[in-house]
Amino acid sequence: MNTSPRHSDVFRVLALAALLVLGTHARAQTDPLPSWNDGAAKKAIVDFVQTTTTQGSPKFVPPAERIATFDQDGTLWVEHPMYSQVMYILESVPALVKAKPELAKVAPFSTVLEILKGDRAAIAKLTMPDLEKLAVATLTGMPVDTFEAQAKKWLAEAKDPRWKKPYTELTYLPMQEALKYLRANGYKTYIVTGGGQDFVRVYSEAVYGIPPEQVVGTAGGTKYGYAKDGKPFLTKEPKLLLNDNNGGKPEGIHLMIGRRPLMAVGNSAGDQQMLEYTKAGDGARLSMLVLHDDAKREYAYGPAQGLPATKVGAFTQALYDQAKKEGWIVISMKDDWNKIFAFEK
Amino acid sequence: MNTSPRHSDVFRVLALAALLVLGTHARAQTDPLPSWNDGAAKKAIVDFVQTTTTQGSPKFVPPAERIATFDQDGTLWVEHPMYSQVMYILESVPALVKAKPELAKVAPFSTVLEILKGDRAAIAKLTMPDLEKLAVATLTGMPVDTFEAQAKKWLAEAKDPRWKKPYTELTYLPMQEALKYLRANGYKTYIVTGGGQDFVRVYSEAVYGIPPEQVVGTAGGTKYGYAKDGKPFLTKEPKLLLNDNNGGKPEGIHLMIGRRPLMAVGNSAGDQQMLEYTKAGDGARLSMLVLHDDAKREYAYGPAQGLPATKVGAFTQALYDQAKKEGWIVISMKDDWNKIFAFEK
Repeated sequence: MNTSPRHSDVFRVLALAALLVLGTHARAQTDPLPSWNDGAAKKAIVDFVQTTTTQGSPKFVPPAERIATFDQDGTLWVEHPMYSQVMYILESVPALVKAKPELAKVAPFSTVLEILKGDRAAIAKLTMPDLEKLAVATLTGMPVDTFEAQAKKWLAEAKDPRWKKPYTELTYLPMQEALKYLRANGYKTYIVTGGGQDFVRVYSEAVYGIPPEQVVGTAGGTKYGYAKDGKPFLTKEPKLLLNDNNGGKPEGIHLMIGRRPLMAVGNSAGDQQMLEYTKAGDGARLSMLVLHDDAKREYAYGPAQGLPATKVGAFTQALYDQAKKEGWIVISMKDDWNKIFAFEK
Repeated sequence: MNTSPRHSDVFRVLALAALLVLGTHARAQTDPLPSWNDGAAKKAIVDFVQTTTTQGSPKFVPPAERIATFDQDGTLWVEHPMYSQVMYILESVPALVKAKPELAKVAPFSTVLEILKGDRAAIAKLTMPDLEKLAVATLTGMPVDTFEAQAKKWLAEAKDPRWKKPYTELTYLPMQEALKYLRANGYKTYIVTGGGQDFVRVYSEAVYGIPPEQVVGTAGGTKYGYAKDGKPFLTKEPKLLLNDNNGGKPEGIHLMIGRRPLMAVGNSAGDQQMLEYTKAGDGARLSMLVLHDDAKREYAYGPAQGLPATKVGAFTQALYDQAKKEGWIVISMKDDWNKIFAFEK
């Protein structure tokens, strides 16, 4: 073989061209979902992606229409014993009371101070109207930039009581793999959460690679105004625009995205309508539910399939039966995931 | 030169590799804004894009944060003599009356029937409450899919009275070039319109290359429900969630995008707050206003700079003065654009 410099250059270019051509194929050979055990759930995701993205497939979908929506709490990260944002609300109360000392003796603020002193059981005393009052007091009334800075600070410091790690590290590795796999195949991944849109947007990009404009959540209004120096700013108002739970999920998807998702994943009764709406579209559609059935590595709650009942992210038996009837895939954390967290050995 | 098949293949690969390497550079040499005359407006756009996208520039912005927002009516396409969506509302009345004949004798429906018979001057008789009543009757109460199909049909058939062309052809070529130029440089382009979000989303992708999820507009709520066969669907409700005008534009941007734009373009007093909000951010920011000062090729209206006053897309003298004071660029259609429409010779 002639190995003059000129020829070796040519071979280098040829090798490069071959790599460019074969790259896609080579990547497809690597398992994109290594934390998933082989089984119906993993197969459903891979089949769905291949069916919708293979040119010439009868169910091929152009990249612009590839939308996948994921609930957050209990679907992408841990929601027990309590939603992270509720912890944010509770742990914001001391600063609030410091600024307005008269609140220290007024319920529900006084109740929260008791809870934070160690009386965790007192959380059960908080009613929905209590939580709404606390949410209004800690999530509204300030400029959006101030809220963002406060939420960022809390997220950097707060720790989950069981794992003693920041909440943002308690994301499910198999779901992170699924998000990446979908994006590598031209999907736009969205979070569609009952949690606060402004709260989740603070960390969605760093934690999930999902930019703020792809987070749909429970949203309040803002009010445009001017500071003393004339600089304009937005203030968070106690006015609910979108309750992004139940029917509010497809309503929020229509408002914020304007397209029906091809794939949707949730874990509780609040996700039912999003999964129905997704499946009701034409062509290939995938609806999935995460079942928390791994008390050892995470938590076990239903009450579906005889798992312990809960008020936080309940997966009812009715939802389970609907999933089976309508061909939604139920993901068993215990059986389908060989690794739940990135920090596991 | 040896021209055996093997060698010519090699040369083809080399040529391809050279193209891959040189492609970016070659593209940068071509004028991306050929319909813009050389001047302050064109220079401002090119300088802004170069400053924010050149690696190492002190005002470099990572691609994920490159957001540019454009008003639609009067900024991206013609808004005179009347906003296209108002024409849609008026021209939807006959079908409405056909379905509900009792409306034929009731104002404002009867007034609209007179207008459509040829008494165009009667448009002036319509008050804002009239228009609201007509909007509720023609834009709400139906499934979102039905509305989409109706709007699509109208857009395919309706013609602007002056140019006798579909409204969707009356977009400004210089703005289409600016949108493409921004996208080629990693910008996400958004429409932020006082018009109906659902209406504009019907054609935004085909007309501007802007997908539905990048359209922020005046938005109403929807209601999730089930058809008789159990299939879920969304119904458009007469409930206003976002009035995307004036302060509502930055509020809508926060709700739907969650990031402050780097660049914003408008043409009327309703865009003032969006331009202020954009300019108030750090780093390089560009706010622009289109001034309709070309009665011959399009329309002339202000009342800024002594141009005729109008109720449709008014550009007030106060807005003009604010633009000059705050360094917003005023685009003169007459002087800055050598071609307004793609169909011009």
